[in-house]
Amino acid sequence: MSLINNHHLSTSISSSSSTFISQNNFFCIRTQNVSLPMRNNGIYKCAATPPAKKTGYKTNVSRNSNMAKLQAGYLFPEVARRKNAHLLKYPDAQVISLGIGDTTEPIPEVITSAMAKRSHGLSTIEGYTGYGAGQGEQPLRAAIASTFYSNLGIDDADVFVSDGAKCDISRLQVLFGSGVTMAVQDPSYPAYVDSSVIMGQTGQFQKDVEKYGKIEYMRCSPENGFFPDLSTVSRTDVIFFCSPNNPTGSAASRKQLTQLVQFAKKNGSIIVYDSAYAMYMSDDNPRSIFEIPGAKEVAIETASFSKYAGFTGVRLGWTVVPKELLFSDGFPVANDFNRIVTTCFNGASNIAQAGALACLSPEGLKAMHEVIGFYKENTNIIAETFNSLGFNVYGGRNAPYAWVHFPGRSSWDVFAEILEKTHVVTTPGSGFGPGGEGFIRVSAFGCRANVLEVCRRFKQLYK
Amino acid sequence: MSLINNHHLSTSISSSSSTFISQNNFFCIRTQNVSLPMRNNGIYKCAATPPAKKTGYKTNVSRNSNMAKLQAGYLFPEVARRKNAHLLKYPDAQVISLGIGDTTEPIPEVITSAMAKRSHGLSTIEGYTGYGAGQGEQPLRAAIASTFYSNLGIDDADVFVSDGAKCDISRLQVLFGSGVTMAVQDPSYPAYVDSSVIMGQTGQFQKDVEKYGKIEYMRCSPENGFFPDLSTVSRTDVIFFCSPNNPTGSAASRKQLTQLVQFAKKNGSIIVYDSAYAMYMSDDNPRSIFEIPGAKEVAIETASFSKYAGFTGVRLGWTVVPKELLFSDGFPVANDFNRIVTTCFNGASNIAQAGALACLSPEGLKAMHEVIGFYKENTNIIAETFNSLGFNVYGGRNAPYAWVHFPGRSSWDVFAEILEKTHVVTTPGSGFGPGGEGFIRVSAFGCRANVLEVCRRFKQLYK
Repeated sequence: MSLINNHHLSTSISSSSSTFISQNNFFCIRTQNVSLPMRNNGIYKCAATPPAKKTGYKTNVSRNSNMAKLQAGYLFPEVARRKNAHLLKYPDAQVISLGIGDTTEPIPEVITSAMAKRSHGLSTIEGYTGYGAGQGEQPLRAAIASTFYSNLGIDDADVFVSDGAKCDISRLQVLFGSGVTMAVQDPSYPAYVDSSVIMGQTGQFQKDVEKYGKIEYMRCSPENGFFPDLSTVSRTDVIFFCSPNNPTGSAASRKQLTQLVQFAKKNGSIIVYDSAYAMYMSDDNPRSIFEIPGAKEVAIETASFSKYAGFTGVRLGWTVVPKELLFSDGFPVANDFNRIVTTCFNGASNIAQAGALACLSPEGLKAMHEVIGFYKENTNIIAETFNSLGFNVYGGRNAPYAWVHFPGRSSWDVFAEILEKTHVVTTPGSGFGPGGEGFIRVSAFGCRANVLEVCRRFKQLYK
Repeated sequence: MSLINNHHLSTSISSSSSTFISQNNFFCIRTQNVSLPMRNNGIYKCAATPPAKKTGYKTNVSRNSNMAKLQAGYLFPEVARRKNAHLLKYPDAQVISLGIGDTTEPIPEVITSAMAKRSHGLSTIEGYTGYGAGQGEQPLRAAIASTFYSNLGIDDADVFVSDGAKCDISRLQVLFGSGVTMAVQDPSYPAYVDSSVIMGQTGQFQKDVEKYGKIEYMRCSPENGFFPDLSTVSRTDVIFFCSPNNPTGSAASRKQLTQLVQFAKKNGSIIVYDSAYAMYMSDDNPRSIFEIPGAKEVAIETASFSKYAGFTGVRLGWTVVPKELLFSDGFPVANDFNRIVTTCFNGASNIAQAGALACLSPEGLKAMHEVIGFYKENTNIIAETFNSLGFNVYGGRNAPYAWVHFPGRSSWDVFAEILEKTHVVTTPGSGFGPGGEGFIRVSAFGCRANVLEVCRRFKQLYK
């Protein structure tokens, strides 16, 4: 997560031109709002550096030293800041973002109608509901269990409905506390590492290796097929594992997940399995960790409707904590998670829950599959473009991300080059951990016209 | 937060009868769903006690010792469990809950229409939005700043929109970390103490005094007008302060809040001011801590639409962290809170945000005031009932709670007596801390027919 070198930025970027960007009218570019300008005299502000502000009064409360360990801003706000700085520099540029992985397609009407109906209902005596169960409404818990975990021995009561997988990851970290050790795939979705740092599970950031102390980084690279060599991985209490993976787009096979479960079982570790992209899979690999025998005794699974139904803004996810999962003293992990959910959270919005229930109706499922199919076609188009330009592209088949290799180059340099020369926002691979260095993640979340235009620009840049 | 003595429960309750409950048809009692039966052979299960379950496999992950410190369940789920047990015992009883403080009146249509419109819009290309700013949508941040903090020097950027004040309290605890000391009013809303325990800020629960170690309990009683004697309060890093107070219903005066701010300033403490009931105030006391000069350098304020617009299920709150508030090293607290919000949270549901914006329109404000006025009338009715029966009743004027004194009696005993003999759910005062012992909180959240019926039953019980 190194910040781009400012000197480099000002030299390599300012000398380039963007004249090849056409002004063709393609339809779905939306107006970009310029906000939060963070560029100041060529210096990008880093969230870890206190602004030089003078006031007369400071409290005597010490800043949480774990917060101070965090490097720069969270990755995606940092990418957004750079996009905004670019927009200030080129106010007329037709910037297209395939960066943050934000959904762009409207939510199917069968789902929005259910949310509108629930909203209207809240103004009636019959339809009004106040506090719901913090764990989620019973029919939704049941529908999630039967849709995603049929015949896997997951009960309604194992399912905790939430406002999103990212939020649940932090709640799980609060549950585990500061005393646990953790492992992550390298590269991986940054919320695992950052929330671990915040909870005090890690040491300081080591600049030479770009890793935090006490975290076990499980390298996932083309050489090992993006599955870690577990024989070299030290035992940790918690193992975060995302499949299909964000950012590499690769999905672990049944054999690999069986190895992972056996590894956890041997070590007495808890796997936090992030399956937020499971419905994007084309291969016949497991959709849930609970398809692996014995997983219920070692794994938690978290997922979300964000990338299935465009719920990134509506906010609805879930986490499965099987009753079979026990701490070393025999206490069920689910009981403590229940306590966290009822004490630190008050349930997802009832309107979002109505939407989620509609997602799982026959019509909703069909509509979700259509949205997912559309984004999968985008991924194909992007992956084939880079392939045709001679790049090695990974992912693209089981997840809405193309993971493009630029061997020997800095990810942030490539990010800056692409932004400057094509006005396209991507995500630098090194933002996902040192193992992502030399890669760029291109998200498939965009309307078709934008995706085609991006590919046209890529072809001009890298022809 | 002591659990009711089971022996006592089985003796004092089983001998009573409920024959005086009339079967008059009053309109708004709704069907009670019996779920989560926790009563088992007369023993109420306590969340802190692991179920005696035998399985073959345990992980080697130690349970977070802070979780193990927590006593019983979070108060309100515990109250709900007892209600459900009562329903199992009396399946035909017309149970009325004035316990958890859950809103019952429909949300005004001007607000639900805005949410329905936003929902429908999400199915259109023009209306679709994905990830929003984690801090909230700009127009809503601006509307909150101008509606609640006009002329108080609070900028849009100081306002962080969230899924509720309770959730923000936990996020603030994560921000502060385990190294801070904290003070709370005693009695107080239990989320402050419980989230502090979870974060590891406290010592063990001391059964003799019913307090956690390392927490400074600031006694608030009729004797001190429910404002703590600050000359006897030790310095802590963080001071949680709720006004108008839940559960006592009392609102601090301008003079008292000035004392509080001066106390914090002298000690270099940070006040977390919970103003979730500010719109219920009848007196001319401050609605916001930021009305007190200098408060921006020592205070955070959290609030919510839950009790204003019936958003307990919709989930929308906010927290103000002024840029003037600095840690001892000069680092702005708001910068770290921003990092927490973007890393551990992803913003409130966009539909709920549309509802909140409608709340702050002229029509929405008028409608909210009508809902609040209705509940305030309920509080009057309840307070006058207890007054007429010779009880000392506190609160009721500035908050939707009546705080009724039963000198010398156990709160859980009174709770059980009222539930058994009138089928009315209240909240035992001791659930809010040892300073609440001998009190019962009666919430004003109910339809008028239920409130009148409850008062009729109280009059029969305590005539």
